[in-house]
Amino acid sequence: MSTLNAQIAETFSRLKEQKPLIHHITNFVVMNDAANVTLHLGALPVMAHAAEEVAAMASVAGALVLNLGTLTPSWLESMRLAGQAANKRSTPVILDPVGAGATPFRTAAAQQLMAELDLSVVRGNAGEIGALMGRGGEVRGVESTKNLADPAAVAREAARAWGAVVAITGERDLVSDGERVLAVANGHTWLTTLTGTGCMATTAVACFVATQSEPLVATAGALAAYGLAAERAAGLARGPASFKVGFFDALYALNANDLEEGVRVTEL
Amino acid sequence: MSTLNAQIAETFSRLKEQKPLIHHITNFVVMNDAANVTLHLGALPVMAHAAEEVAAMASVAGALVLNLGTLTPSWLESMRLAGQAANKRSTPVILDPVGAGATPFRTAAAQQLMAELDLSVVRGNAGEIGALMGRGGEVRGVESTKNLADPAAVAREAARAWGAVVAITGERDLVSDGERVLAVANGHTWLTTLTGTGCMATTAVACFVATQSEPLVATAGALAAYGLAAERAAGLARGPASFKVGFFDALYALNANDLEEGVRVTEL
Amino acid sequence: MSTLNAQIAETFSRLKEQKPLIHHITNFVVMNDAANVTLHLGALPVMAHAAEEVAAMASVAGALVLNLGTLTPSWLESMRLAGQAANKRSTPVILDPVGAGATPFRTAAAQQLMAELDLSVVRGNAGEIGALMGRGGEVRGVESTKNLADPAAVAREAARAWGAVVAITGERDLVSDGERVLAVANGHTWLTTLTGTGCMATTAVACFVATQSEPLVATAGALAAYGLAAERAAGLARGPASFKVGFFDALYALNANDLEEGVRVTEL
Repeated sequence: MSTLNAQIAETFSRLKEQKPLIHHITNFVVMNDAANVTLHLGALPVMAHAAEEVAAMASVAGALVLNLGTLTPSWLESMRLAGQAANKRSTPVILDPVGAGATPFRTAAAQQLMAELDLSVVRGNAGEIGALMGRGGEVRGVESTKNLADPAAVAREAARAWGAVVAITGERDLVSDGERVLAVANGHTWLTTLTGTGCMATTAVACFVATQSEPLVATAGALAAYGLAAERAAGLARGPASFKVGFFDALYALNANDLEEGVRVTEL
Repeated sequence: MSTLNAQIAETFSRLKEQKPLIHHITNFVVMNDAANVTLHLGALPVMAHAAEEVAAMASVAGALVLNLGTLTPSWLESMRLAGQAANKRSTPVILDPVGAGATPFRTAAAQQLMAELDLSVVRGNAGEIGALMGRGGEVRGVESTKNLADPAAVAREAARAWGAVVAITGERDLVSDGERVLAVANGHTWLTTLTGTGCMATTAVACFVATQSEPLVATAGALAAYGLAAERAAGLARGPASFKVGFFDALYALNANDLEEGVRVTEL
Repeated sequence: MSTLNAQIAETFSRLKEQKPLIHHITNFVVMNDAANVTLHLGALPVMAHAAEEVAAMASVAGALVLNLGTLTPSWLESMRLAGQAANKRSTPVILDPVGAGATPFRTAAAQQLMAELDLSVVRGNAGEIGALMGRGGEVRGVESTKNLADPAAVAREAARAWGAVVAITGERDLVSDGERVLAVANGHTWLTTLTGTGCMATTAVACFVATQSEPLVATAGALAAYGLAAERAAGLARGPASFKVGFFDALYALNANDLEEGVRVTEL
């Protein structure tokens, strides 16, 4: 087994043991799913967006997820407050720039958070990351509609520009800290038939990163674990909804040994 | 096979090919389900309600859904802005007046949108449409609690009054453009055991109407396709939740041929 | 069969017959699930939070649920308005103080509603109720993280202090009206693997209490019925998501006879 696989398995063991609180400020579409993914992986979810309490909640969290789906200005302001509180305690902040590139409002919101906060990880699809980097990403609603010429290079550049680990997810996930680039081969096309699978992947990343492991490996490990559960659920699926049931069951059933044997992460 | 069935099948083929973006401003209860129904039918969903971006989002959409569940004044204002942007580009706007008749606020909101916007389709239950037309509809919460004496006549009158295709859904769905009335016999009683099945039907209508087919036939076709998937899922259901899983799987599996053979739409 | 079981079965029969409207002002995470639980038990759900309509909606409801998850000040204000309208008609108000104890904002919100409204039932976990009573409850996010030394005593004290039936749910549920204490043994550990199972239990309580039965017995009966459905679903579960499907199916399938034979409620 590779060192990467061992590191990922160890991170997952720590996650199961520490049960970190994952504070989400996320969109209405995925709130229930994101909370369940958090629980199934072994962490504790909380959703809270009131300006009156986000700093208090983020201060006791193991990681903070900021997700721009169904965004409004007042939610953006709460994200800033929560992010500042998390930064003060060096709690990892994970940004999911849902729909960046689709409207000027979403793009500007993502840019503002990247400028003002110290982010640990940014996870998006090729369209979102490409649009934010001015590298030809196209977003229709929340969907990436054009492949990037060289996504690994864009991930590396974005990581340098933003001072964060950057994950571009798709058929193959690419994760970079600005130096190294890891490729994750786990996953299944059934994931593309469901809403919110990118957002849920971000939640998985937050759970792994909350263990205070190296963010590059934690991020790749989370995406690999997520994809591995999808692979295991695929065989029983009769359609997207039965796939989803099996996928959540499989996320819950994953253990460190499964990850050590099943994740397919390689360094480019 | 009837001409209607052929037209409906053709509309569905176009939907699968065009993958239109369906912009929803909808209620919190059904956001996840509405997004999945959109994807499973072959279109792309986006949920966005910020006044700062709804016009931009509606301007690139193939159809706009305005759904009054969990409504507040600020959401209503966003619906107006999005609706105006859609109208400017002749993008179809589909209104679901959830809970009209239950409180004065919901009734007035529906009336305001009908007065200010050019709507392609209004879909509601007998209580909602009946209440809005002053034809004795009764609504308890979001549920219709009294049958209309002559729903086909109410649908036709409403379509004339509002200048839109009107669908009254229930055990039998009635759809009128003010002249013709189509009746849809597809469906299953399991649908009545789940929340949001009316809202999801509206989403299906938006997907079909986004193909720029004749709105009357597209609406009836969408409701028939939706009902056909329910029929196919009914056999495997052990209760409402397993029915829902099977129903979503069946929506995803539908193809144009299934519709040509299975939809039961007749002209009254 | 015990008198308690017969009373609980009778309450459930009345619920199925009366189909009360259950007005929820609840959090975004559980809205869909809470609506489905309401329907599956035989009642009608409505979710409405606009200050412009909550009084009108609460005035025609059989019970009102106030749930503090994902709370903001404007939602809190709507809860006050709805609660006052419900109180005016002696409609039961059920409070779920989600996350009380986790942040000052949530704790203060719960205290304000308890001070201003006449509540029929307060249902929380040991952390939430313990924190609100100053009895050493600990809450991390929305999770109780420490057992109370004597939860039955805390439930009785809280019921006296708040003038409401108080339910502390957990492995064993304890319900008190300040005099009697009932213990509910039904339930299954699968419930702890899903988000929102406490919130959904509150919904079940509201459905039973809406029948105008004695609130103590109605609350214990609702929690027992909920736990009984979980027991029945456990055998088929392959993980949390397949458990959830089976659980909702089982809730729908419950009848009065099942309750008379299966609920395990004892007086302490």
